[in-house]
Amino acid sequence: MPYRAPISDYQFLLHHVVGFDQVAATETFADASADVVTAILTEAAKMSEEVLAPLQRAGDLEPARLENGVLRSSPGYADGWKAIAEGGWIGISADPQFGGMGLPMAVTTAVNEMMSAACLSLQLAPLMAQGQIEALEHHASDELKSLYLPKMISGEWSATMNLTEAQAGSDVGALTSKAEPNGDGTYSVTGQKIFISWGDNDFAENVCHLVLARLPDGVPGTKGISLFLVPKYIPDADGNPGVANDLKVVSVEHKMGLHGSPTCVMQYDGAKGWLVGKEHGGMAAMFTMMNNARLGVGGQGVGVAEGAYQHALAYALERKQGRTPSGKIIDHADVRRMIMDMRADIFAARAILLANATAIDMAKATGDADWAARAALLTPIGKNFGARTGIRVAETGVQVHGGMGFVEETGAAQYSRDVRVTAIYEGTDGIQAMDLVARKMMDGGEAASNLLDEIEEQAEHARTTMPDLAGPVWEATETLREATEWLVAQDDMNDRFAGATAYLQAFARVLGGHYHLSAALADPEGPRAKLARYYINALLPEHSGLLARVQSGADDLFSLSPDELAA
Amino acid sequence: MPYRAPISDYQFLLHHVVGFDQVAATETFADASADVVTAILTEAAKMSEEVLAPLQRAGDLEPARLENGVLRSSPGYADGWKAIAEGGWIGISADPQFGGMGLPMAVTTAVNEMMSAACLSLQLAPLMAQGQIEALEHHASDELKSLYLPKMISGEWSATMNLTEAQAGSDVGALTSKAEPNGDGTYSVTGQKIFISWGDNDFAENVCHLVLARLPDGVPGTKGISLFLVPKYIPDADGNPGVANDLKVVSVEHKMGLHGSPTCVMQYDGAKGWLVGKEHGGMAAMFTMMNNARLGVGGQGVGVAEGAYQHALAYALERKQGRTPSGKIIDHADVRRMIMDMRADIFAARAILLANATAIDMAKATGDADWAARAALLTPIGKNFGARTGIRVAETGVQVHGGMGFVEETGAAQYSRDVRVTAIYEGTDGIQAMDLVARKMMDGGEAASNLLDEIEEQAEHARTTMPDLAGPVWEATETLREATEWLVAQDDMNDRFAGATAYLQAFARVLGGHYHLSAALADPEGPRAKLARYYINALLPEHSGLLARVQSGADDLFSLSPDELAA
Repeated sequence: MPYRAPISDYQFLLHHVVGFDQVAATETFADASADVVTAILTEAAKMSEEVLAPLQRAGDLEPARLENGVLRSSPGYADGWKAIAEGGWIGISADPQFGGMGLPMAVTTAVNEMMSAACLSLQLAPLMAQGQIEALEHHASDELKSLYLPKMISGEWSATMNLTEAQAGSDVGALTSKAEPNGDGTYSVTGQKIFISWGDNDFAENVCHLVLARLPDGVPGTKGISLFLVPKYIPDADGNPGVANDLKVVSVEHKMGLHGSPTCVMQYDGAKGWLVGKEHGGMAAMFTMMNNARLGVGGQGVGVAEGAYQHALAYALERKQGRTPSGKIIDHADVRRMIMDMRADIFAARAILLANATAIDMAKATGDADWAARAALLTPIGKNFGARTGIRVAETGVQVHGGMGFVEETGAAQYSRDVRVTAIYEGTDGIQAMDLVARKMMDGGEAASNLLDEIEEQAEHARTTMPDLAGPVWEATETLREATEWLVAQDDMNDRFAGATAYLQAFARVLGGHYHLSAALADPEGPRAKLARYYINALLPEHSGLLARVQSGADDLFSLSPDELAA
Repeated sequence: MPYRAPISDYQFLLHHVVGFDQVAATETFADASADVVTAILTEAAKMSEEVLAPLQRAGDLEPARLENGVLRSSPGYADGWKAIAEGGWIGISADPQFGGMGLPMAVTTAVNEMMSAACLSLQLAPLMAQGQIEALEHHASDELKSLYLPKMISGEWSATMNLTEAQAGSDVGALTSKAEPNGDGTYSVTGQKIFISWGDNDFAENVCHLVLARLPDGVPGTKGISLFLVPKYIPDADGNPGVANDLKVVSVEHKMGLHGSPTCVMQYDGAKGWLVGKEHGGMAAMFTMMNNARLGVGGQGVGVAEGAYQHALAYALERKQGRTPSGKIIDHADVRRMIMDMRADIFAARAILLANATAIDMAKATGDADWAARAALLTPIGKNFGARTGIRVAETGVQVHGGMGFVEETGAAQYSRDVRVTAIYEGTDGIQAMDLVARKMMDGGEAASNLLDEIEEQAEHARTTMPDLAGPVWEATETLREATEWLVAQDDMNDRFAGATAYLQAFARVLGGHYHLSAALADPEGPRAKLARYYINALLPEHSGLLARVQSGADDLFSLSPDELAA
């Protein structure tokens, strides 16, 4: 069974679960009518199914490689990029002034998910461009915007993010790349960056690098970092790529998966760059890009999960083994359990990400700080849970295939290898969890509390019609509230951090329960209500084991010395 | 940090946790004194650390391959096999009459774990031989034993298991391979077998295949299957390999991991074979081999987990990132959490497997049916939990490495890719879980109940000295008991199977709590008591979410139709 984009799930979630209709009711997004959204999703689905999906395996078998300093992408990827660019799928949410469609992030989220499901390694290229486009829209000068944005949005030029250095990964503030003013408004950027996704390619006319570096008067740490736009070829005033800049791809990593996406070591040797945002204001600009990318990476996880689910289901519907009513393995209880786990988790993760995108859209359209806080709260949860859903579901997909899952030719293993990175890049699980319990709780837990109020209110309301679903959701939420209050009360950040990952996972489980309940209420006799019942009975209970970890504090964690750990 | 075998952990577990001293007190295992065991473990550790560990990476980078029909193993593997053979590590528990050491399975289990940690793909070869040796000891004629066992135990000849066919995986009874009597006491075996680990090699003089096939009068299903010994070269009466038999390796699979171990498609074209056991009694003989292999595969999981733990810990102790007391990432709470999770789970899984092996040894030494029942009960739990611990710990090892974990050069990814198969081969997770709730509960749950009694008794006893550890273990055990009673009461097997995997996982969690508590009682002020506290606070609570799934029955699982699942 080839990949089929789950359009009806997006439509159901948008209109019946995550409240997208309020977005379409705003002036900003007045064009995003249900019909327009349906048309967009249908087109993107067609492109993902027909153009991108056939490229996935080739990217794994024939990885992108460096040949005499020239980056050669995997077979067919140039055509794939062209289809993405021509469909307008890079700039769905970009400013129409520069060629974007100006549609809500919720639409971009659904489209990105489809492209990820079809071909994750290629989809990473437009995802990087979307992040850079947003960063430039918010922080770049008008001149840079007019020169670069149309080219990026059209896909003539591609884009990358350059944060990490060998000694500066999660700790971005430790970076040592330098930028010197040239006296003409431009800068000379020097340094080595690692883990640069799509650091180069052979299908875009130009590659635009956003590079974090420190000016001579930049203080140590994150506060002394500035952001620079450093193109592979320096464009003339008309936007024609001119002379080559002083930068190069040093090498391409050999990775566990995602072979079609070249992960590059980039060397900048006094490369010409333009400041984006203010001097020493690089982190603010970078966060614009990063938050976008985090939502996107969560969506990559869900996309791969959907691909792996469909792939495993097709196998389970076809593979004969043992005595079952249909003769197929789908009727074995444990296979059915795996399939149901996959599907129920995908629904939950997809809902969280679409709710996150909806909050971003509402914040943009209304300027309301509560919406912005909701979006900020949901981002680390959506990123982590989306990634982990991808990893767990793809892993289960391997298991459904039995021995054939471990053999590469079925493709089940590739889903599992490819998606593994989503829990690492754009901030590891641990970074997301720390973000959630520290930065996102600087409001004293208000944003979290408001969300829990909404969940409980709905569950309270649903108690009369669906008591067996509403009850567990309400109780789980109450337990989560207690954990939240405990966390906020801890002044020693290590006590918060000790349980941060478990807290995030439990929060995602409860949110999943909430959205499943919403689905059941909207479609009480349909299959989504049955799926909700499954999730609430089988998966929601995980929150209790997780929350048991949250309030333990850090003492147990640090009870063994490094020597004892190594003994 | 190169791999260092955890000898002190084995000694502590054997003598203070799993009751190995009763084994050494039997007449059968009178030679297995503490000194002898220490000497054996020390030698095996040295060989694993010095000879096997350096081969691991080469096996991944230069996979075993078929070259003009000849199997070429990975660089250095021939020397590794020689070291294993000469150390006597194939026949540790084999009959001394044929050259074995006659030591307990508990010792073999520890040694196998070390070899797995050092080089999983090569260790699979002696593991297959151990299974075949045990099957021949129990079921072969004296003539076959005298001819084959000394060669297998010495490692001059290697061994394989041939069960699976393309249409007969978990459902072995569906196999179609045939055997025809030749009239001279031998048989002609014809058929194709897949997933044959180490189906051939270039370091043993001969390869002995145990092949399941159906005689002309064999009924359909498992009851019509017989077991045949089919050598690559037909030996003369003195045991010299003679003419080539009519069998060949058709191809070698391209797998997600374990590249050093050739997974072969084997073709038998009227190959000469000798019956092992009775006609149509193949499954009984095969189960002897299989149970041994299941314990061994659980141990592979634990071995890889230990390797991945040491590897990740070394990175965490060395990698600088962020502001921590030591400047190293080991002091970040979430990194510490990962390291502690890894270590606590390894201890639990290792204890379960050593307890399983001890029960096997006691059953052999005493003939006591209760010990045999204990061993039978623990086997699916140990296999599944050992494998899953390997997968989870190796996965966490990748995460500890951050971006470097996704890059192959660190080796973290290889652990994760290699160990993935342990949840699949020798019976998938689902097969283990079904075995536990069906075959192993045919006694009405008596073996399980006896074990739970012991656990509660210890916890009850420990309440006075360690109430905060003993209390949770007692309560978790009581919850598990209720779930066990519920399971046993279900006549519809689908209702048992629906919760089987969760039940098995919860059982393992509770057993882990029990063995951690035993460790804490034996060493109340030491690091093992601290680790026990961590496990009981952080990991034991998972049992509640798991057990919530057990008593739901199969209705929710089957609530969606195949069409609804595919919609």
